[in-house]
Amino acid sequence: MGVSFRLRTAACALLALVLVMLQPSAGRAEDPLPSWNEGAAKSAIISFVERATAENTPDFIPAAERIAVFDNDGTLWPENPVPFQLAFAMDEIKRLVAEKPELKDDPMVRALLEGDFGKLLEGPHHDGLMHIVALTHAGMTTEAFDRRVGDWIATAKHPAFGKTYDQLTYQPMQEVMRYLRANGFKTFIVSGGGADFMRVWSERVYGIPPEQVVGSTNGLRYELRDTGPVLVKTMDHIFVDDKAGKPVGIHQFIGRRPVAVFGNSDGDKAMLEYGTIGNPRPSLGVIVHHTDGAREYQYDAQPKSSGKLVEALKDAPQRGWTVVSMKDDWKVIFSSP
Amino acid sequence: MGVSFRLRTAACALLALVLVMLQPSAGRAEDPLPSWNEGAAKSAIISFVERATAENTPDFIPAAERIAVFDNDGTLWPENPVPFQLAFAMDEIKRLVAEKPELKDDPMVRALLEGDFGKLLEGPHHDGLMHIVALTHAGMTTEAFDRRVGDWIATAKHPAFGKTYDQLTYQPMQEVMRYLRANGFKTFIVSGGGADFMRVWSERVYGIPPEQVVGSTNGLRYELRDTGPVLVKTMDHIFVDDKAGKPVGIHQFIGRRPVAVFGNSDGDKAMLEYGTIGNPRPSLGVIVHHTDGAREYQYDAQPKSSGKLVEALKDAPQRGWTVVSMKDDWKVIFSSP
Repeated sequence: MGVSFRLRTAACALLALVLVMLQPSAGRAEDPLPSWNEGAAKSAIISFVERATAENTPDFIPAAERIAVFDNDGTLWPENPVPFQLAFAMDEIKRLVAEKPELKDDPMVRALLEGDFGKLLEGPHHDGLMHIVALTHAGMTTEAFDRRVGDWIATAKHPAFGKTYDQLTYQPMQEVMRYLRANGFKTFIVSGGGADFMRVWSERVYGIPPEQVVGSTNGLRYELRDTGPVLVKTMDHIFVDDKAGKPVGIHQFIGRRPVAVFGNSDGDKAMLEYGTIGNPRPSLGVIVHHTDGAREYQYDAQPKSSGKLVEALKDAPQRGWTVVSMKDDWKVIFSSP
Repeated sequence: MGVSFRLRTAACALLALVLVMLQPSAGRAEDPLPSWNEGAAKSAIISFVERATAENTPDFIPAAERIAVFDNDGTLWPENPVPFQLAFAMDEIKRLVAEKPELKDDPMVRALLEGDFGKLLEGPHHDGLMHIVALTHAGMTTEAFDRRVGDWIATAKHPAFGKTYDQLTYQPMQEVMRYLRANGFKTFIVSGGGADFMRVWSERVYGIPPEQVVGSTNGLRYELRDTGPVLVKTMDHIFVDDKAGKPVGIHQFIGRRPVAVFGNSDGDKAMLEYGTIGNPRPSLGVIVHHTDGAREYQYDAQPKSSGKLVEALKDAPQRGWTVVSMKDDWKVIFSSP
């Protein structure tokens, strides 16, 4: 392969050179975050990236250590009126009830269908929600689950915005992820949502491949069937990647402390701490604050569903975390106009 | 950053071009696996990589799906006279006994010090071994554990070969990993060994970063101490990444079926199946067979420690798995001469 490999490399290099030289020479630097208004938040992000990539300075971060982690619900897309995975579970329950009407006698199914989420969250381990997850996930192969998620994300629409859920990612955050990757950062999702739910579409929607998605997981049972090997979802060994579970998930799945952490709620406080307190490398902590009741939602202490933000917001000044106001800092909200 | 970025890219492209053109034009293709003798095993690996990267053919595998997984003990380095992590645990126990002599009254500590590994493996969950792991790991922060492993790997020597353990990786397998990466594959370790143990040195020794190491894990407890955030190792939620646990670990951590699987024992049978049976993509399954009693070790059905190979070897012909004879297929064994 030596010669053809070298030829191909030479051709690539030549092409890159030509392409670069053909670009019009801009008078000033391009804006890596065009959907962000000028201000402290935008400056903090750009300044961090420039410091991290400035070779031969004390702040330089070697490429291998440029790990950036992003919460998903409320940070990369909305979590209202309910987290999107819960909307998926509700649609799955409706589909199951159509097949097996006796399921309506199940008190937790009834609570879900009636929107009584408080009841689902009762008990030490959100017993109702776990029961719903068991009904909609357990016993299914990972491939069958992937198909269900894929079908749902392609067709289901958000009740308020009338678009498919994957059209509702935040454009300014898409720009941050691309900007970081262009500067040698590896971007990961670290979410309380299910890893299997997100991995179906994370690469297409965020440019984040499945192996860079850390999320909540259930157990799996391996079986070699006549049709081939399968993994069957079970309800044992549930790992909840939220609150103190986030640094744990980061260590178990990534094995390195992140240097850039993006979240939006108290569920992200522990991973903000883990990335930014006493980190020998420069670090960046960012909180997306939902301040835009007109274009999206406005909440912190009293969210409509998940996303309570009190403690992390209180700690932000002393920790040096950047608080992003969606209303003031973002020119546009959604990636799809 | 636009202009300076473009200038830098142009400079890089020019440099690449010059470097490529300066290389002497070889009359024949370079050998990507120089430590391998010509034969069926070497051909199978090269043929797979060439098919997987041949654009516009049915066998072409998109770069994102080029996932290659490697067992560690017995596949990338030896597992004799005991798996190297057990050697680490033994040295740790000796260190602890020197500090607390009363530990010698512990029957499992005594079994370990006397080399009675059978006793450690008794019970439904290898109770003795778990007890040893608890003694040497639990309650320690991940940072303290990393330091212990780092100190050990830098100094401890293999009893038979007289070298540090990280000098004992198999040179032919190092070449396979580099060859795959040069062709757009992402290489992962998927080992029954502890993820935390391997991640300390995997990047330096194998070129595999921590986030691409899948291994056995214990629980962790997050604490924000006055000195900063820490993760404390606990003994709950132990995940054993072996046998049927390997496809499970692959799904949980990578989220994609691998297309190339390298193992050496029945502990790798399930992941060989998972990668190669009914995979819609072309796939490669490889078993490293320890046939070289002179240069390394010779075993399969009756290994000295771990590494029993009976079922996977029996299945190999019908599954199309390539069996590598270390004696016949490898010119050299170790990466360090």
